[in-house]
Amino acid sequence: MDLEDNVFMLPGPVKIHPRILRAMNVPSVAHRSPEFTEVIGEIRDLLKYLFDSDNDVAIVSGSGTAGLDMAICNMFGKEDKVLNITNGKFGERFAELSEMCSNSTRLDYEWGKAPDLDQIASELEKGDFKGITLCHNETSTGMTNPAPEIGNLAKKHDVLFIMDGITSVGGLEVKLDEWNVDVAVMGSQKCLGAPAGLAALSVSERAKENWIPDACYYLNLKKHVDKLREKSQTPYTPAVPLLQATREALLMLREEGLQNRIDRIARLGKATRAAMDALGIAIFPEREYASNTVTAMNYPAVIEDLKFRDTLKRKHNVILGGAQAHLKGKIFRIGTMGVCNFADLIACIGSIESTMTELGFELQKGAGTGAIVDYM
Amino acid sequence: MDLEDNVFMLPGPVKIHPRILRAMNVPSVAHRSPEFTEVIGEIRDLLKYLFDSDNDVAIVSGSGTAGLDMAICNMFGKEDKVLNITNGKFGERFAELSEMCSNSTRLDYEWGKAPDLDQIASELEKGDFKGITLCHNETSTGMTNPAPEIGNLAKKHDVLFIMDGITSVGGLEVKLDEWNVDVAVMGSQKCLGAPAGLAALSVSERAKENWIPDACYYLNLKKHVDKLREKSQTPYTPAVPLLQATREALLMLREEGLQNRIDRIARLGKATRAAMDALGIAIFPEREYASNTVTAMNYPAVIEDLKFRDTLKRKHNVILGGAQAHLKGKIFRIGTMGVCNFADLIACIGSIESTMTELGFELQKGAGTGAIVDYM
Repeated sequence: MDLEDNVFMLPGPVKIHPRILRAMNVPSVAHRSPEFTEVIGEIRDLLKYLFDSDNDVAIVSGSGTAGLDMAICNMFGKEDKVLNITNGKFGERFAELSEMCSNSTRLDYEWGKAPDLDQIASELEKGDFKGITLCHNETSTGMTNPAPEIGNLAKKHDVLFIMDGITSVGGLEVKLDEWNVDVAVMGSQKCLGAPAGLAALSVSERAKENWIPDACYYLNLKKHVDKLREKSQTPYTPAVPLLQATREALLMLREEGLQNRIDRIARLGKATRAAMDALGIAIFPEREYASNTVTAMNYPAVIEDLKFRDTLKRKHNVILGGAQAHLKGKIFRIGTMGVCNFADLIACIGSIESTMTELGFELQKGAGTGAIVDYM
Repeated sequence: MDLEDNVFMLPGPVKIHPRILRAMNVPSVAHRSPEFTEVIGEIRDLLKYLFDSDNDVAIVSGSGTAGLDMAICNMFGKEDKVLNITNGKFGERFAELSEMCSNSTRLDYEWGKAPDLDQIASELEKGDFKGITLCHNETSTGMTNPAPEIGNLAKKHDVLFIMDGITSVGGLEVKLDEWNVDVAVMGSQKCLGAPAGLAALSVSERAKENWIPDACYYLNLKKHVDKLREKSQTPYTPAVPLLQATREALLMLREEGLQNRIDRIARLGKATRAAMDALGIAIFPEREYASNTVTAMNYPAVIEDLKFRDTLKRKHNVILGGAQAHLKGKIFRIGTMGVCNFADLIACIGSIESTMTELGFELQKGAGTGAIVDYM
């Protein structure tokens, strides 16, 4: 097996287009030179296109978690009350961050189940919260959380809405302004299909009135936002090849068009669910909240996780996601983000049909791939 | 001018070897897969070779400043007294970090001048310091600070010695164990010649007895060290292409041999100073502390910084460093790190001779390049 031959369908990182790989392959440049300053300025403007908002943006060299850290630790101090909604691993990450930096109250829901909006409203009514956090798209459970409704509650109760959009921005419908999102975070290796290692943030005017200017050093949000807006620069040395790759990924997004990309990803997500229905494999999260960028399924009882994914990889070069934490071994996940296309998806579904049959699960061969063809 | 044709002599980032660039050019891999875990484990072992110590190591996706942040904020709390020695921009960065996280006392020395060891000793004698910081090699002034002497003082007074080795580790003699260094930081784009975007740390047993386990989230030192030692992994998604590049750079270092690399860089540094002497251009820092990885020179009175560097770049494709802060326009800097070689250096010096002559500085043509030839 060669990496080049893989059908790479993780919930992130996702397939990297050769154009994006080639964009990294340039010799050293001085990151403070006028030429590279222009590149960073172009990335800033393309990020605004990606976030679909006039909000200021920031880009930081670090993983998505670095972005989440920036979103919490620059916005809330030890005394500030923050309400954390969790129903998966990444909602919990926000809660852990909030517990470290601020005064966190958690509302924990079962993984894969929608949060209880009435309960959230009544918690907010108790007053004096400064912020609320939500992971918009939970890759851990393949679920898209009701961000517009949370945004309405945030507005009604005048709290800052901090949203993890790492696997939604650029892949799902995201309306930061309409939804009253104050800080949104995305990661380079998800819906953009660039390599891992950069996070970007969109920051509302209201967030800027409320941030803490000197809460941290490397992950300082204000310094990143100000320097990018005023000087088309980053406060510290950026990861130059990753910026070059991300710029190419953003250009590819703009060529396709943000709405076209979102529509295409929606078709891929629907097709994936239709294929699973046709094969008799149950979708894990509440159906109406199933994500289009990551589909999570329960394993049929006879299928053993590691054996299944190992066979897929060894015999068919198909790379799928297992699960995290207590769901390990119980569910598997397919990512359909970025430049992932129907050719990838049908190869993936065909390989699942073959492998599950081999491992003793009875299914109708061609039923899953046929469902994909319907959407192609 | 094409980037490919540049003679790239900044004080960092430095020239990236094509082997290192090519190492990045691979499709997506699952960073938690057994295959990539093996790559990370190999990087861990190669980092120990680079740091020349059995200390535990950490690697983080972020710039050198992220590494400095980790070195300070995980080691010292608000009440802890830290003595910051500064005589350049990066010593000051340590002081800014310490002022944010801890109780900082600064001993500021003139940029380019050696710190006063007696004064440092008597400050430490006042007692109750938990740590002392030093930038080993100040790129801002082209100066190598007396780390062994500071290390002796740290040991005598039982304080933690935190050292910025960003432009020394892998390029200058660094003896972490002998010098009692508790935390040392390096950056990927300096002496290794990999792209920017990764920092690595070496952490002594004494540092591990004193760190604060939950001081921060993304930049958590304990999590990075433990996960790398125990699982050959990083706590959060790493910047995969940068790890691939850095592994290749580490392999190239091991092929050359650490001591051979240090000796070669020393010859390049000495040759650069000899060339400047021959051209009548004064070395900026105290001569006995002049660095071998970055040489800083005073501009002759007739030479104007921007015009000089612009002409060098436009006519000869030579990229040199200007200066930072109050030294801007007064000094220029040549980096001789990583895979930089005598062919690069002689092209650089020849271009300086030509450009300075053109801009009205009287020098003996061939005197600088001749001095280089003596060292080749």
